[in-house]
Amino acid sequence: MQNLSILVINGPNLNLLGTREPDIYGHETLADLESMLKKRADELGVNLECFQSNHEGAIVDKIQEVRGKVGFILLNAGAFTHTSVAIRDALSGVEIPFYEIHISNVHSREEFRHHSYLSAIAKGVIVGFGLQGYICALDSAAQYLRSKNS
Amino acid sequence: MQNLSILVINGPNLNLLGTREPDIYGHETLADLESMLKKRADELGVNLECFQSNHEGAIVDKIQEVRGKVGFILLNAGAFTHTSVAIRDALSGVEIPFYEIHISNVHSREEFRHHSYLSAIAKGVIVGFGLQGYICALDSAAQYLRSKNS
Amino acid sequence: MQNLSILVINGPNLNLLGTREPDIYGHETLADLESMLKKRADELGVNLECFQSNHEGAIVDKIQEVRGKVGFILLNAGAFTHTSVAIRDALSGVEIPFYEIHISNVHSREEFRHHSYLSAIAKGVIVGFGLQGYICALDSAAQYLRSKNS
Amino acid sequence: MQNLSILVINGPNLNLLGTREPDIYGHETLADLESMLKKRADELGVNLECFQSNHEGAIVDKIQEVRGKVGFILLNAGAFTHTSVAIRDALSGVEIPFYEIHISNVHSREEFRHHSYLSAIAKGVIVGFGLQGYICALDSAAQYLRSKNS
Amino acid sequence: MQNLSILVINGPNLNLLGTREPDIYGHETLADLESMLKKRADELGVNLECFQSNHEGAIVDKIQEVRGKVGFILLNAGAFTHTSVAIRDALSGVEIPFYEIHISNVHSREEFRHHSYLSAIAKGVIVGFGLQGYICALDSAAQYLRSKNS
Amino acid sequence: MQNLSILVINGPNLNLLGTREPDIYGHETLADLESMLKKRADELGVNLECFQSNHEGAIVDKIQEVRGKVGFILLNAGAFTHTSVAIRDALSGVEIPFYEIHISNVHSREEFRHHSYLSAIAKGVIVGFGLQGYICALDSAAQYLRSKNS
Amino acid sequence: MQNLSILVINGPNLNLLGTREPDIYGHETLADLESMLKKRADELGVNLECFQSNHEGAIVDKIQEVRGKVGFILLNAGAFTHTSVAIRDALSGVEIPFYEIHISNVHSREEFRHHSYLSAIAKGVIVGFGLQGYICALDSAAQYLRSKNS
Amino acid sequence: MQNLSILVINGPNLNLLGTREPDIYGHETLADLESMLKKRADELGVNLECFQSNHEGAIVDKIQEVRGKVGFILLNAGAFTHTSVAIRDALSGVEIPFYEIHISNVHSREEFRHHSYLSAIAKGVIVGFGLQGYICALDSAAQYLRSKNS
Amino acid sequence: MQNLSILVINGPNLNLLGTREPDIYGHETLADLESMLKKRADELGVNLECFQSNHEGAIVDKIQEVRGKVGFILLNAGAFTHTSVAIRDALSGVEIPFYEIHISNVHSREEFRHHSYLSAIAKGVIVGFGLQGYICALDSAAQYLRSKNS
Amino acid sequence: MQNLSILVINGPNLNLLGTREPDIYGHETLADLESMLKKRADELGVNLECFQSNHEGAIVDKIQEVRGKVGFILLNAGAFTHTSVAIRDALSGVEIPFYEIHISNVHSREEFRHHSYLSAIAKGVIVGFGLQGYICALDSAAQYLRSKNS
Amino acid sequence: MQNLSILVINGPNLNLLGTREPDIYGHETLADLESMLKKRADELGVNLECFQSNHEGAIVDKIQEVRGKVGFILLNAGAFTHTSVAIRDALSGVEIPFYEIHISNVHSREEFRHHSYLSAIAKGVIVGFGLQGYICALDSAAQYLRSKNS
Amino acid sequence: MQNLSILVINGPNLNLLGTREPDIYGHETLADLESMLKKRADELGVNLECFQSNHEGAIVDKIQEVRGKVGFILLNAGAFTHTSVAIRDALSGVEIPFYEIHISNVHSREEFRHHSYLSAIAKGVIVGFGLQGYICALDSAAQYLRSKNS
Repeated sequence: MQNLSILVINGPNLNLLGTREPDIYGHETLADLESMLKKRADELGVNLECFQSNHEGAIVDKIQEVRGKVGFILLNAGAFTHTSVAIRDALSGVEIPFYEIHISNVHSREEFRHHSYLSAIAKGVIVGFGLQGYICALDSAAQYLRSKNS
Repeated sequence: MQNLSILVINGPNLNLLGTREPDIYGHETLADLESMLKKRADELGVNLECFQSNHEGAIVDKIQEVRGKVGFILLNAGAFTHTSVAIRDALSGVEIPFYEIHISNVHSREEFRHHSYLSAIAKGVIVGFGLQGYICALDSAAQYLRSKNS
Repeated sequence: MQNLSILVINGPNLNLLGTREPDIYGHETLADLESMLKKRADELGVNLECFQSNHEGAIVDKIQEVRGKVGFILLNAGAFTHTSVAIRDALSGVEIPFYEIHISNVHSREEFRHHSYLSAIAKGVIVGFGLQGYICALDSAAQYLRSKNS
Repeated sequence: MQNLSILVINGPNLNLLGTREPDIYGHETLADLESMLKKRADELGVNLECFQSNHEGAIVDKIQEVRGKVGFILLNAGAFTHTSVAIRDALSGVEIPFYEIHISNVHSREEFRHHSYLSAIAKGVIVGFGLQGYICALDSAAQYLRSKNS
Repeated sequence: MQNLSILVINGPNLNLLGTREPDIYGHETLADLESMLKKRADELGVNLECFQSNHEGAIVDKIQEVRGKVGFILLNAGAFTHTSVAIRDALSGVEIPFYEIHISNVHSREEFRHHSYLSAIAKGVIVGFGLQGYICALDSAAQYLRSKNS
Repeated sequence: MQNLSILVINGPNLNLLGTREPDIYGHETLADLESMLKKRADELGVNLECFQSNHEGAIVDKIQEVRGKVGFILLNAGAFTHTSVAIRDALSGVEIPFYEIHISNVHSREEFRHHSYLSAIAKGVIVGFGLQGYICALDSAAQYLRSKNS
Repeated sequence: MQNLSILVINGPNLNLLGTREPDIYGHETLADLESMLKKRADELGVNLECFQSNHEGAIVDKIQEVRGKVGFILLNAGAFTHTSVAIRDALSGVEIPFYEIHISNVHSREEFRHHSYLSAIAKGVIVGFGLQGYICALDSAAQYLRSKNS
Repeated sequence: MQNLSILVINGPNLNLLGTREPDIYGHETLADLESMLKKRADELGVNLECFQSNHEGAIVDKIQEVRGKVGFILLNAGAFTHTSVAIRDALSGVEIPFYEIHISNVHSREEFRHHSYLSAIAKGVIVGFGLQGYICALDSAAQYLRSKNS
Repeated sequence: MQNLSILVINGPNLNLLGTREPDIYGHETLADLESMLKKRADELGVNLECFQSNHEGAIVDKIQEVRGKVGFILLNAGAFTHTSVAIRDALSGVEIPFYEIHISNVHSREEFRHHSYLSAIAKGVIVGFGLQGYICALDSAAQYLRSKNS
Repeated sequence: MQNLSILVINGPNLNLLGTREPDIYGHETLADLESMLKKRADELGVNLECFQSNHEGAIVDKIQEVRGKVGFILLNAGAFTHTSVAIRDALSGVEIPFYEIHISNVHSREEFRHHSYLSAIAKGVIVGFGLQGYICALDSAAQYLRSKNS
Repeated sequence: MQNLSILVINGPNLNLLGTREPDIYGHETLADLESMLKKRADELGVNLECFQSNHEGAIVDKIQEVRGKVGFILLNAGAFTHTSVAIRDALSGVEIPFYEIHISNVHSREEFRHHSYLSAIAKGVIVGFGLQGYICALDSAAQYLRSKNS
Repeated sequence: MQNLSILVINGPNLNLLGTREPDIYGHETLADLESMLKKRADELGVNLECFQSNHEGAIVDKIQEVRGKVGFILLNAGAFTHTSVAIRDALSGVEIPFYEIHISNVHSREEFRHHSYLSAIAKGVIVGFGLQGYICALDSAAQYLRSKNS
């Protein structure tokens, strides 16, 4: 059963969702997003855990902790996307496949948001699809886990 | 009714799908992809047209031609992603929202595939999700069009 | 008489003129521009042919075709300005002098529009003068051809 | 009354103030600085809270926590100035105006200290004024808050 | 009436016109150019003042001085094109529209002549048209002023 | 027998051969080159087809079309060498080995001609050997095909 | 007494203060600024001279002239900040400490305004504090001079 | 006696040692490494403390905490090597000499691993020697401390 | 007769040919290559001398020594291709035309192998043709010398 | 006789010679230098004029003024070396050969002092020879003029 | 027995050891170093040969010569570290593992000393450990050879 | 007496002087240059030795050999100027002051000739003065040695 477990990680400032720069990030809160994802996970018959932190180290700890316990990670690393080699190394270290997600289209924002330390080792990247991007990623991850386990 | 029309454009060498570098692009052909997308479009109640060309100019022509006729474009511009300002300008010119799609994860390939002329003006970008990326994009586009028309 | 012939080439998306991004490109159409230019050519006593294409190869073909037949080219290569070595090589190959024209001021737009493959071999460059830029270029070209033929 | 509240944040290693590289940072300690600032705040009739941390995540947390509670931030992010997008995003997210402060003149030190992720969204930047820079910033912030509230 | 006034500014070394590097700049002198322009201005019914200086500061002073007095500037800043932020700021400051003119085609000369501090805020740029470039610019400027005043 | 088939592709402006910039490209025409190559192919007992186009898309189409039919490609992509990822992808896609040929020494020309999108995946590159470069490449290709088939 | 003399230098276009781009620079004029500074100088018991020029050379001359006469310089070099090595050398040459001041936040403006030739040798830099920045700098300079003289 | 104390710091993901990417990092665990080092320290007659954290801030805190208590630091900062100015500043601040250690040869890995914020202020750097690198560093550090204390 | 003399120079590590990295360089030795070339030279009726050295200075000496004695040089400078200005200057100095040869395709290897100090002044360059590249070059050189002497 | 006239130009801050940064520039004043040069000029039988200015425009004016009157210029442009295209253009415009002189070794100072706009068109450059560099340049210039006139 | 042979190579200027820049390189001579290493080799039961040269070619020759004779190389290539592709290629060619050694910490010296052509193919790199670095490397190499032979 | 000894070193290809590219290097041979210099040295009462080599290692050896024997070096390192860190290190190592000399103006030649590894540690640099540059340098060196010895 553990192979059908998925972890959602939201990085720094995503706890402000729904209240921060709503023209970029929309009006739904992190709680809204998490309950939407859990509902979908139930429909898909997969386990879902959600985690948010503003601390790079806590995210590294979390990734290490779920090693061997979850089969896929959905990761919106927020600002750490552009600055954290430690999160990249944690992901390589635990060998859990992951999708990189960004709510807004980072390519139409500041130059420094165009580079990601994570993309090169991600299974896929989805940006600019709003909260829908998490749903897409969850669907694909579930499908991937089922095909692995069948 | 025209507002619920969606155009799928596949760029150069995507007609080789299923036969070219299958470890990168998988074993399903362009015909497989297109019928899969049409089936989903029917389910979603949207119109779908599919187009493929190895000619940059033909893609520009096509984009201009559907102006005012389709409400969304799903675009995998293949190699032109990295070299074509003309396709970018056509998309700006006709003011049709579009998603940029890549089957493989371009970020784990050659350096020159990390830059896209299209991303900055796309509504969203999805890479490395395989053919599933088109489905995600189609679902989101349909949802977008319905919300616009409601 | 052939020495007084001038070819006007408009590149990709310039057929959208008057309807595309009117705050940048204005409200007059390509047809308006071409008839305006033909009227002026008549006044100047020079022959004028107009050509537009969204296909780089077609523009290269056209340039080769008029070799020895026209004495000057007025070229707004649009997006190809920034990406086409083939058009540059065609112009060098046929040895016809040309002016490079841009309707909008490319220097106040995206960084990638600041570089032109054509400028270094052009006789002159005029940008940001709107459709008036074509008239200036036509007047100068006519004057150049007359001085050559006298 | 809350509109007259100001938060002072000192980033990593600023707790070593007065003991670390005194030729660069002087002999006064962080406690000296904080009591000096509180004294001035009293004179100005504004509320002042002081915070120091060596943890990027803790600074992000703090910034989020004071949202809607303080009207201005005085921020010496120390080393995080050059590496933290997360702090930048937190500041954008809470929409509290802030001044960026550096005790030493970063422009006469190593190349990597010449770039700041924070300056572009700061209201102002003051560097090389020693501890006096905090006083200048406090005076200006107080004046700004009063003018806003009047 | 003042709205129909145009100022022509020629920058450093353009007083050598006709005698300096004639294969690049031709054989006509600055006096020739200025009387040619004045004649045309008379035909167009606009006021024309001509100014030349080798001093960046004097050009800045001149631009400030004509604020509110002239409606358009024709500016060949010569070498200052590539080095003067002060002239750019003066032009922004007085909010007078201007055309940037270069007699020779700067794009076929040294690399450092390919960058202009002025182009981004110019209304248009014309290079490589010889002295004819000033006439084109004058005609366009006159037309612009008339359309503004009508 | 098909394994001994070789395709020669000449890109944009190579149809001008013998008439364009003869000091760089010599006086022999494309027809001369093609008949010279066919004569040599006959001597070597290999099949030879020749193709030229100024259209990037047409070259991509051609490469796809000969898949499984020719055993080697001799490619002078002309200007597309420096700008076409689509041709590179077509060559990777059909998995036909190829030599990259340039008549002139591109390394002693403009900077932008020093980079090739094709070289990294070519079997070999020959530049500056004039038309003789095609003969060298044809000889080596024939030898390669024979050794593969023996 | 001369050790308590301070020179304020304002560079090009700062004479337009209050009238130029008021959303960036505010509505107070240079005269307003200078009288405000003189008033404060009186309160502080220091001598103050104000100087403005649009000429780089005149600023260099001025700096040389006050050598040995003033103890501190407050310098807003405007556009020369980004282009003048001569002013930097003058300041090094006369060995008078100085603060670099910018009214607006140069870090949120064009890329070329992010580099300063002066910062590396300044005692401190204050940007984006509006006219208040001059007051901060004056206060600090006065304090510095008193501590030197005591 | 405190002068003979040495602190070993292992950064993010080094707690995965022996289980993470064993072809790069080998099969021995962090516990193995630490007991190996303690055994050697006993032989050398020096005090040894070991510390590991995935949190940048915790490493900064630790470095500050041992100030005046340990005479040398052996530091494998892992991913923070390439991104942390804060750790660099902490090391400068406490003025404890340190060796920088990497188990694998970072120079044969990704480009971004070739730059270290720490090397410039380290006493020495040892990379690619596996766990043996810690022993080398410990031996050298012990020798250094003895020579300082003798 | 001397005009028909050709010198083959092989640079550093090419004496390891046939034993070094055989998957890149093949199994034939330098002696094999040299006797193959001498046999071909006999057939072509040209003189051939072969030289190999691991010393940059010895190669410079050799090039100077054959001045006026050989009519063409075939040069595989190996590693010196990327680092030696001295060999380039020697070749310019003696004014002997030369072909640059590389056995492997340097363009599909490390980045630093993509730049050559020699290509810009070579008559031609051939890479990735294996030992056959020397034969191609020898044939072309012989043909060149005959056409010069006829 | 005018062909034996030489102009010495010293740029910004060189009037501080002998008093400014004496460890870099020595203790002799500009007056000392000029009288030393005049004495040598007398010995050499050439005319010598000396000029110094802190104004770029004044130096441009001076260069233009001596056109056709002096045969050689000795130029220490000081800070303008690195920033002035106008002086370069003036020197090209008047076609007077010149030597570029720097008292200190600019190559061992800040990075921005390593680039000169003047060197590429100078006849020669001498740096780091102290005041002796002027004497060397004067001797060579005199010798050059004599050989021209003989 | 030959498998336990180790070659120490010291590159240019290391023969000056003990006399050149002693604050960087210490006071022990090359002879001191070599006898220290031989003594340690005896203790370890391995064969040791020492070699020094100022000639790049001689180092390449030496590396080739020991092929199949020594099992490990300790290499301080001195200045050639930063400039020699030939030594890199020799090391790749003979397939002998090696450690790269620098006495001083190259990362705290000039920028150009931060890049090494050798590191990417070295087994390990040790810098800034003084002569002790050679001992560390020798110990590790001996251990490596023993484990290989066991 | 040894303190008045000067060594002249000429690097690669300077033995071709007078015969190589005479429009750049003139018609006088190396022997002419050396006897000219010896004659001048006699007049100046200093010892002069001349050395030329095409081998970088030989130049390093020579510099080491004269340590403590000559008081000054005049060095035209030719091509090694741009590529040799070893010669730079030798010069630093022996601590003999030197002038860097180039006959032609390297700044008006290829880009790669604009960078010198030697200039930053030279006492002075003289380029483009032809053979006269050696005389200037010899005079200055002699004067320097006398002032040191007096």
